[in-house]
Amino acid sequence: MSPGTTATALDLHPDRLFPAEPTVRSIARELYAEVVDLPIVSPHGHTDPAWFAEDRPFADPTTLLVTPDHYLTRMLHSQGVRLEDLGVRPRDGGPVAEPRDAWRTFAAHARLFRGTPSGLWLDHTFATVFGFDVRLGPETADHYYDGIAAALASDGFRPRALFERFGIEVLATTESPLDDLAHHDRLATDGWNDRVITTFRPDPVVDPDFDGYVANVERLGDMTGCDVTRWDGYLDALRQRRADFRARGATATDHGHPSAATADLDVRECQRLLDGARAGTLDPDESEHLRGQVLVEMAAMSLDDGMVLQLHPGSRRNHSPRILERFGRDKGADIPGPTDYVDALRPLLDRFGLEPDLRIILFTLDESTYARELAPLAGFYPCLTLGPPWWFFDSVEGMWRFRRAVTETAGFANTAGFNDDTRAFLSIPARHDVARRVDCAYLATLVAEHRLTPDDATELAVDCAVGLARRAYRL
Amino acid sequence: MSPGTTATALDLHPDRLFPAEPTVRSIARELYAEVVDLPIVSPHGHTDPAWFAEDRPFADPTTLLVTPDHYLTRMLHSQGVRLEDLGVRPRDGGPVAEPRDAWRTFAAHARLFRGTPSGLWLDHTFATVFGFDVRLGPETADHYYDGIAAALASDGFRPRALFERFGIEVLATTESPLDDLAHHDRLATDGWNDRVITTFRPDPVVDPDFDGYVANVERLGDMTGCDVTRWDGYLDALRQRRADFRARGATATDHGHPSAATADLDVRECQRLLDGARAGTLDPDESEHLRGQVLVEMAAMSLDDGMVLQLHPGSRRNHSPRILERFGRDKGADIPGPTDYVDALRPLLDRFGLEPDLRIILFTLDESTYARELAPLAGFYPCLTLGPPWWFFDSVEGMWRFRRAVTETAGFANTAGFNDDTRAFLSIPARHDVARRVDCAYLATLVAEHRLTPDDATELAVDCAVGLARRAYRL
Amino acid sequence: MSPGTTATALDLHPDRLFPAEPTVRSIARELYAEVVDLPIVSPHGHTDPAWFAEDRPFADPTTLLVTPDHYLTRMLHSQGVRLEDLGVRPRDGGPVAEPRDAWRTFAAHARLFRGTPSGLWLDHTFATVFGFDVRLGPETADHYYDGIAAALASDGFRPRALFERFGIEVLATTESPLDDLAHHDRLATDGWNDRVITTFRPDPVVDPDFDGYVANVERLGDMTGCDVTRWDGYLDALRQRRADFRARGATATDHGHPSAATADLDVRECQRLLDGARAGTLDPDESEHLRGQVLVEMAAMSLDDGMVLQLHPGSRRNHSPRILERFGRDKGADIPGPTDYVDALRPLLDRFGLEPDLRIILFTLDESTYARELAPLAGFYPCLTLGPPWWFFDSVEGMWRFRRAVTETAGFANTAGFNDDTRAFLSIPARHDVARRVDCAYLATLVAEHRLTPDDATELAVDCAVGLARRAYRL
Repeated sequence: MSPGTTATALDLHPDRLFPAEPTVRSIARELYAEVVDLPIVSPHGHTDPAWFAEDRPFADPTTLLVTPDHYLTRMLHSQGVRLEDLGVRPRDGGPVAEPRDAWRTFAAHARLFRGTPSGLWLDHTFATVFGFDVRLGPETADHYYDGIAAALASDGFRPRALFERFGIEVLATTESPLDDLAHHDRLATDGWNDRVITTFRPDPVVDPDFDGYVANVERLGDMTGCDVTRWDGYLDALRQRRADFRARGATATDHGHPSAATADLDVRECQRLLDGARAGTLDPDESEHLRGQVLVEMAAMSLDDGMVLQLHPGSRRNHSPRILERFGRDKGADIPGPTDYVDALRPLLDRFGLEPDLRIILFTLDESTYARELAPLAGFYPCLTLGPPWWFFDSVEGMWRFRRAVTETAGFANTAGFNDDTRAFLSIPARHDVARRVDCAYLATLVAEHRLTPDDATELAVDCAVGLARRAYRL
Repeated sequence: MSPGTTATALDLHPDRLFPAEPTVRSIARELYAEVVDLPIVSPHGHTDPAWFAEDRPFADPTTLLVTPDHYLTRMLHSQGVRLEDLGVRPRDGGPVAEPRDAWRTFAAHARLFRGTPSGLWLDHTFATVFGFDVRLGPETADHYYDGIAAALASDGFRPRALFERFGIEVLATTESPLDDLAHHDRLATDGWNDRVITTFRPDPVVDPDFDGYVANVERLGDMTGCDVTRWDGYLDALRQRRADFRARGATATDHGHPSAATADLDVRECQRLLDGARAGTLDPDESEHLRGQVLVEMAAMSLDDGMVLQLHPGSRRNHSPRILERFGRDKGADIPGPTDYVDALRPLLDRFGLEPDLRIILFTLDESTYARELAPLAGFYPCLTLGPPWWFFDSVEGMWRFRRAVTETAGFANTAGFNDDTRAFLSIPARHDVARRVDCAYLATLVAEHRLTPDDATELAVDCAVGLARRAYRL
Repeated sequence: MSPGTTATALDLHPDRLFPAEPTVRSIARELYAEVVDLPIVSPHGHTDPAWFAEDRPFADPTTLLVTPDHYLTRMLHSQGVRLEDLGVRPRDGGPVAEPRDAWRTFAAHARLFRGTPSGLWLDHTFATVFGFDVRLGPETADHYYDGIAAALASDGFRPRALFERFGIEVLATTESPLDDLAHHDRLATDGWNDRVITTFRPDPVVDPDFDGYVANVERLGDMTGCDVTRWDGYLDALRQRRADFRARGATATDHGHPSAATADLDVRECQRLLDGARAGTLDPDESEHLRGQVLVEMAAMSLDDGMVLQLHPGSRRNHSPRILERFGRDKGADIPGPTDYVDALRPLLDRFGLEPDLRIILFTLDESTYARELAPLAGFYPCLTLGPPWWFFDSVEGMWRFRRAVTETAGFANTAGFNDDTRAFLSIPARHDVARRVDCAYLATLVAEHRLTPDDATELAVDCAVGLARRAYRL
């Protein structure tokens, strides 16, 4: 930092995120003390398994912390910053800012994150991972860049060292069925197979609207030797890849569909839809039917192999065609919309809803469904469990809304604990810390209002931190 | 309770459900002191009038408290407990658990209700009705069963004694137009006619999708001597039964439609729909029109006979066809969905919306309509009043959400006070106590933030406890 | 006030609307001290420019404060008061209550506003503008009427004097393109052109369902000399009027569409829709397309002339045809409904969404879109800014819900500060005071929970009070 600048202190208050009322705060502190040192269980996320397999130093501050984090880049974009200026490479290979310049641009806009979860995560990461004691801003941009760059060059900041330092018990990555899982094989060789596990995410070969779907399905056939032009061969190929994933520690599948639609069609219709998908002739309703049918097939396979099915519907992805065309997917232009569960899940629930051995974890980007649909569904059907607040709602207020909306109908036992769901590896401790603090704050409020006994609150705090996730994901 | 077990104390804290902040809590306490001893006004519920007519002892703890309470059975079902193991008899008469065994199963899962309204109601009932001072759990299951069974055998726990002890001023039950109202006649003979009144719930003869609709309508014709094959005869039959109900104290009708749709069709179309319903040939839209038309006819009759019309839309009932087939209705598989009021009520409101003598009480299972649709509607149309938070939302958080979403647009005067809406007779004091506490907590918050004077808050606390309900239901 | 009555004291507590918890309250007080004396920036509202142009005394208490305020009249109407009894003149010229009688009716129902924003605004106006120290009620009706009438007759209560006294920096009125803007010309003559500015609200010539649309469009042609029967001439006419408005200080346009639908059609289809609108032959979908197309044309013009585009969708206006027929528009029978933004705005955003120089301010009457759609949209697209809580949600709870739902995804920088949006001139200080208090209370909560530094909170409090509005509206 240059001398004479006005950088303000960065200190993480030990009571942060706890309600101000002293009685509640005191109870929250006690509960938090029971969970602060528990290991991190991360059953759903998007870190790169290559990091842990190869254990090479991270490249530079910007490439690690800014450019790939669409939570950050979209916010600056909303205030007129070009994505290129944050290092986001256009598909045509056009020029982007140098890492240090991009970092300065980021630092100049750090104030945009006041009051946001990204702001909390960044401060926690900067303070606890890198030891900064001044806030990021234009005047501290280089101080930060140099400090982080120096740290990243040291052995203590290589991926496995950080993994150990973060106290991670298990971390799930997410791979396509077309992935050869070589990184996970390498991890197994090194005895890390129980620590970094994979998750089966078949969207690229399931969603006819996915970029490259036809070639993807063909490649699936090549990888498995199955005749993926036939419905039963296509299912066999998926089944075979599930087994491959399961052998690399996967306990779950994940499905990022636009809606929660499910279907239970006869085989002839399934074949017709598969043919249409490969020919590129499906209309939107047919695509929806095909995705919904595969989801039901996945549930059937889960009954056989025990994998937990995660459903993440409701994002209108790639809302801006220009951004998609110029930069590709996952650049922040994904906008939630209203999502139906009650009618959409009916075909699946009619067929498997009463199976006690099936586990389906439901997520949503439509909070109006928490109390209206999701809690009543999970509070009745044995197979359903509610995932934690997701994406935009992985936030302090989002977690409060989730607990308040869901608990009274579904209780705690029908929820799945916390997911960090992130590609931002260094933010994982911050994210779990926020979740633990908010859960303790919520439980403390119930205790202070005599809606829960202190003993129950302690047990539930531990459950929310680790127990529910371990049970929900069969870890 | 067996010696040496780990049962924890059950004590109801006098400040429960009040905010922890000392100033607010102190105001809430003062407000609550004004309402705690007021009588219970219960204008909408589902207790069995036979209980009060015959005044026989209740059978056993399980049959009274667990098996018929789908709030409880659905929660255990969601965690893999079979309904039969809770005493729920399949339609085919298959075997169910003995009451004591079912009670033990229930007790073993009592922890599922932590943080739920059922948990609050059960604790209140156990402590205040039966005097238990340890919590229900696996180790106290028999202690509870034996204690409750012994109590139920005593005169002080017969229905009328409990009714007196609970301080109930008036209790409305709900009957079908096909009910002979013999229990209410018996109650009248005993001078209880003003204390236990009936409510006219015509769904079985109004909803073409109701189980047995055709036979039900025929039976309606037989009971009334009206030609129910003709639209005017069918309406006459309903009118006649309303008069019969009115003679047994009914001040209200109740309508459990899937949606809030209303219709204002010409007589020829009405006749066509009635014919179709009796022939079983209506499509879903036509069924909707028929139900909506009858609702408007009910409003017209209300203008004549003064009965209050209650509309309870929005439940997708019998979501699980397997549960419906095996166990019948009302087994917890009823899931809310989005519910429109603005367009749906237009035909009714166009015709009668400005009538000052009509009273329609609207309920919802879609909380997103509270502030968006219901409060603006009730804040304009003289005939509309908002019912309290219903079913899943008859809860601490649900009541807070209701008051916060509705009051600023509709005020208090356009709301109808509390309904317990329960078949669980012993929980009635608990439910009213929760409502009074939350209302006092809400009002105390307004006082503490200088948004309401203390005198106004006192008056409104009494209104919320009894005054609004008496006025809304014309008691 | 008559001697011996029971009027209660009216005093505005200095801590009103601040949370009761002492730490939070103390922080809120400090923040509020920084903003309480800032000028009022009112970039969107509906006061009558004639008041400020002519600066004549207001007529009488009822005509000023009650009759034109549909927030008040609808609430009394909901409790059975006839609009005529509040001075609302029927279109047929039928009789209405005398001002003093209407005032008494209003006073007799003042209790209906307990817990509502109108109650807060009225008390603030009565206490600070008129100096009352007893509450309005039946027993103080004449005391109030006489006191207000006397005040209004004095020079200190003429519009410009009040404008100065209120500390208004700039006030935007809203006019139709058919307005000759004579009042604003008069204001310019008097050097008030920067203080009272206009806003271009083209609904009467854009919405084919608007009363008198065909004649309105013809008049637009007459005023501009453009051939409004041709699509390009029609656009030229709008462009010309925008320039006229801009010359009278307008920095914004405003659009009160039933939905947020936008369209990007070819010129031939635009001409066809315009022809159909003028012929009265459009079906509802076509009317929607036409409105949506004009909205996109307005955005294109905004790129040229720099005017900010405000979109206020979601009201089902004139819900009661009888009220519309008898009294006309804006009588309280406007009911919100679900409103889609994600798909509706796509044509507009596809075309202009990435333009950094375009500013679109989005409002909503569907709070379920705050976190689900609006914050993610504004948190990505550079052109989008979120307007403050509107209409029914311009309230204490409404503002809390907005901040909690929006901030974590969109931050503060993507919001537009406060609008009073009122025709009730005397309530303007009250409305801004409520907004400043709630924003300070919200920020104080973040500070107390260590989610925001005190320095940032101070800066943001000032931004929320004046800075964001000035920037969003380019004032």
